[in-house]
Amino acid sequence: MKRTPFASWPCSIARTVDLLGDWWTPLVLREASYGSKRFGEFEANLKIGRNILTQRLNRLVEEGLLERVLYQERPERYEYLLTDSGRDFFPVLAAMAHWGDTWRSGNEGPPVVMRHQSCGHATHAEVVCAHCGEPLKLEDVTSELGPGYPQRLREKAEQMPRFAAQQ
Amino acid sequence: MKRTPFASWPCSIARTVDLLGDWWTPLVLREASYGSKRFGEFEANLKIGRNILTQRLNRLVEEGLLERVLYQERPERYEYLLTDSGRDFFPVLAAMAHWGDTWRSGNEGPPVVMRHQSCGHATHAEVVCAHCGEPLKLEDVTSELGPGYPQRLREKAEQMPRFAAQQ
Repeated sequence: MKRTPFASWPCSIARTVDLLGDWWTPLVLREASYGSKRFGEFEANLKIGRNILTQRLNRLVEEGLLERVLYQERPERYEYLLTDSGRDFFPVLAAMAHWGDTWRSGNEGPPVVMRHQSCGHATHAEVVCAHCGEPLKLEDVTSELGPGYPQRLREKAEQMPRFAAQQ
Repeated sequence: MKRTPFASWPCSIARTVDLLGDWWTPLVLREASYGSKRFGEFEANLKIGRNILTQRLNRLVEEGLLERVLYQERPERYEYLLTDSGRDFFPVLAAMAHWGDTWRSGNEGPPVVMRHQSCGHATHAEVVCAHCGEPLKLEDVTSELGPGYPQRLREKAEQMPRFAAQQ
């Protein structure tokens, strides 16, 4: 897999994209979120080549979203379980699903519907402001340099129109 | 670019992933969401090769997330503007940003902070149930076949554990 070191950019989107890497990685995560644990389950449900699957599972383990756990001793067999950070990726998948439901479903409607067991209703993901709870729309949001923006890049960044609003 | 036809899968995540395609595409979208419009702006801000950028911009135009608009006649110059579906991708980027803020920021904290101009507060994306407004967590969500799930695949899908809850 070609790697571009987005992980080092001062941008949480780029750092997340670095992990996604290619088409398959988010779908392996989707599969894990659907409850798949074993290599053969991922393989059968995704119809993915074994080499590619091995590579993507290893990457997700390296990155801490999946944990590789021994479930059988002879022969040794492992399963792949979501970690906290892997489970925490579900809202991203749910937001992606809603975009796809809206813009890629055609006239037939969504192929899959989520049910929120807590409230009992068929639902979909809505992305809201963590403070006021209103839907987060592009036109209402501005960006500011955060505490983790590298010092050596700050001066240059302060000139960028995207961060100018705070000056 | 190698293409795997995820667009035809009965899954809105796969259909969205098909669009993302590689590391660069979501970052070109991020850049457009930050206000970049012209080829040179994308190029300078992303430090991306011209061939790769051309390819990704064309793909986003084909897919309807960007619109290519003439802004100067001699010589002809175009800019790339977000369409409704492109703007509607912002919540997905915001959800990705929050995951990255949480799991990829280290001790320094987030590199960039969003401010919600509507309420005036520094904020982040929260993904909630569109019905009850509670945070959408993996363990509270089940999946059901939706109206757009292809008839010819329904019988097989109904056997899958992920869709079994509704039987």
